[in-house]
Amino acid sequence: MNTSSAAQNTAGQLNRRQWLATGLSSLAGLAGMHTTHTQAAAQEPLQARLKFSSWLKPVRGDLKQQLDFVERSGFEAVELRGTIANNKQSWLKALKDRPLKVSGMDWGHFTLMVSDSAAERQKAVDSLKAAIDAAHELSAPVLVCVPPRYGQPTAVPDAATSRKILLETLTPLGELAAKAGTCIGIEPVRRKSVNCLHTLVDGASFCRDTKSPGFCIVADFCIMMEEETNLTGAMLSGGSHIHQVHLANRGRNLPGENAEDERPFLEGFRGLKMIGYNGYCSFEGGQIETYEQNVGKCMSFLRDLWARA
Amino acid sequence: MNTSSAAQNTAGQLNRRQWLATGLSSLAGLAGMHTTHTQAAAQEPLQARLKFSSWLKPVRGDLKQQLDFVERSGFEAVELRGTIANNKQSWLKALKDRPLKVSGMDWGHFTLMVSDSAAERQKAVDSLKAAIDAAHELSAPVLVCVPPRYGQPTAVPDAATSRKILLETLTPLGELAAKAGTCIGIEPVRRKSVNCLHTLVDGASFCRDTKSPGFCIVADFCIMMEEETNLTGAMLSGGSHIHQVHLANRGRNLPGENAEDERPFLEGFRGLKMIGYNGYCSFEGGQIETYEQNVGKCMSFLRDLWARA
Repeated sequence: MNTSSAAQNTAGQLNRRQWLATGLSSLAGLAGMHTTHTQAAAQEPLQARLKFSSWLKPVRGDLKQQLDFVERSGFEAVELRGTIANNKQSWLKALKDRPLKVSGMDWGHFTLMVSDSAAERQKAVDSLKAAIDAAHELSAPVLVCVPPRYGQPTAVPDAATSRKILLETLTPLGELAAKAGTCIGIEPVRRKSVNCLHTLVDGASFCRDTKSPGFCIVADFCIMMEEETNLTGAMLSGGSHIHQVHLANRGRNLPGENAEDERPFLEGFRGLKMIGYNGYCSFEGGQIETYEQNVGKCMSFLRDLWARA
Repeated sequence: MNTSSAAQNTAGQLNRRQWLATGLSSLAGLAGMHTTHTQAAAQEPLQARLKFSSWLKPVRGDLKQQLDFVERSGFEAVELRGTIANNKQSWLKALKDRPLKVSGMDWGHFTLMVSDSAAERQKAVDSLKAAIDAAHELSAPVLVCVPPRYGQPTAVPDAATSRKILLETLTPLGELAAKAGTCIGIEPVRRKSVNCLHTLVDGASFCRDTKSPGFCIVADFCIMMEEETNLTGAMLSGGSHIHQVHLANRGRNLPGENAEDERPFLEGFRGLKMIGYNGYCSFEGGQIETYEQNVGKCMSFLRDLWARA
C-alpha cells in the first residue's frame, strides 16, 4: 500500500510540475471552467492522482475473503454491486474497521425511470432514494447508474424523450444525493445497448443541465473505446463532472491483456491528468480464472502509463 | 492579405514550435490517431493555421459587389449558400479569375433523407449527388449538411433510427464525394433543432462508422457553445474529421461582440491548434447593418486569440 501510494504521488507531482512548466495549467483552467468555478477562478489545476479500486465479481470466496484480497493487493477502495437493499447490512459489517473505502455502488439502469407507467417510474424513484440513503451510510461518493436499456421488459422511448423525462425526474433526487454526500453517477454506455447518453459529453451536458451538484459521470474505458473518437478529448469534455473511472479493456478484460490496450489508456490518462482527476479508477474487468493472479501486474502496467501520460 | 497571411504564419509557426518544445506533439499524434493514419504514423502534427472565409448573407450588393468586399477585406475564401442548382453557373462565373477559394457550399438538411417515403429519400439522394458534382466544379472541399430537422413537413424518426438510415444511405455517396475531391460535411446542430448528431464526437463517430474518406464534420462555434461542455475536448474528439469551422458567437453575431466570447474561442482555438487544423474558419455570423464595418476588427480579435491559444 505505502509503496504504491508513494509511486502514485510521484507521478501526480511530476504531472503537476510538468503542467506548470509547459503552460498546460491554463488549459486545465479551461477544462474545468464549466463546473468547478472555484477551481477555475484559482487558475490552478487539481492534483491528479491514480487511486485504484476493485470490483468483487472476479474475486473468489465470501465477502470477507474478497475484501481481504482487495486490501492486501494494494487497492484503496472497493466498488460494490448487487441489490443495495439486500446487501447493505452485510457490506457495512464487512467494511467496519477496514482501511478500504467504498469508491461507488452500482444502482442499476434507468429503464423503469422512463416507463410510461407512473407506478413503474415511482418504483424506480423510490429505489434510487433508498440507494442514496445507503450511499450515505457507506460513504460511497458515487451511485453508478446506466441509461435506459434496450431489450428490457419495459420498452424505452426515443432518446430525446428519455433525456427530457430523466432530467425532470432526476433533478430533485440530485439535491437529495448532494445532501447525502453522494452523487448520481451517469455512466455513458454504448449506443447499441442504451437509448441515450452514449458519450462523456452527453453525460456532462446532462449534469450541467440539472444545475445540481448531485450528479456526476462515470467514465468507463471499455465503453469509451467503442463510442468515443478521442479519449483525451472525452476526458476534457467530461471535465470535473467525472467522479468515477472504470478500468477494463475493450473485451471487458484487464487493461494490458490485449496488445492494443496501451494507446487508449495513455490517451485517456493524459486527459485525466489534464483535468486534475483525483477520484477512483475502479477495475470493472477481468475473469475469475485470472483476476487474482494478474491484477497486480495490471496495476503496474497502468501506473507506468499514468507516469508517461 | 499579405500582412494577415504573415501574421497567421507567425502564429502557426510559434504554435508548432511550442508543441515540439512542450511535448504536445505526442498529444497531437493521439488526437489524430483514429483517422489520419499517415499523420499518426509520422508522429508529427500538421501545422495549424488560421485561414478566414466569409459567408455572403450580411454583405450588401450583388454577387460581384459581395465578392469584391470579401476579397478586399483579406478573406482567403468564400462560403456559398443558396440552392446549388440555381446558383452554380453564376457562382462559377463570378469567381472566375479571382484569388478567392470556395471554403464550402451549404447543401441543406437531411430531413428528407430519413423520410419513410422512398421517393422523398431518392429526391434527397439525387440532390446531394448533384451538389457533389457542383462542389467538384467549384473546387469546394466541403458540402455543409445539417442533421434531420424537427418541425419540417416531413416528420423525423428517432435518433437511433435516423443515424442508421443516414449511415446506410450516405455511405455510398461518400465514395462519390471522395472521388469528386469534396466531403459530405456533417454539421452537429443543437438538440432542440435536430434529432441526432449534436456534438463533434457524434459527428466524428458517424464519419468513422462510414469507413469512407468522403465524410467530415463542420464545427460551428455558435452551436458548440450550447451543446459541448469543453471546446478543447470537442475539437480533440473531432480530430482530423474537422474540415470546416464556422465562426459565430452564441447569438450568431460576430465573435468578440459579446464580452463572454473570449473564453470559448480561446478554448476552441487551443483544440484546433492541438489537432493541427489548417482548414478554413468561415464566418457564419453577423448582421447586415454592421458586418462590413466590424468584420475586420473581429478578424483581429480572433487572430489575437489564435496567437494566445
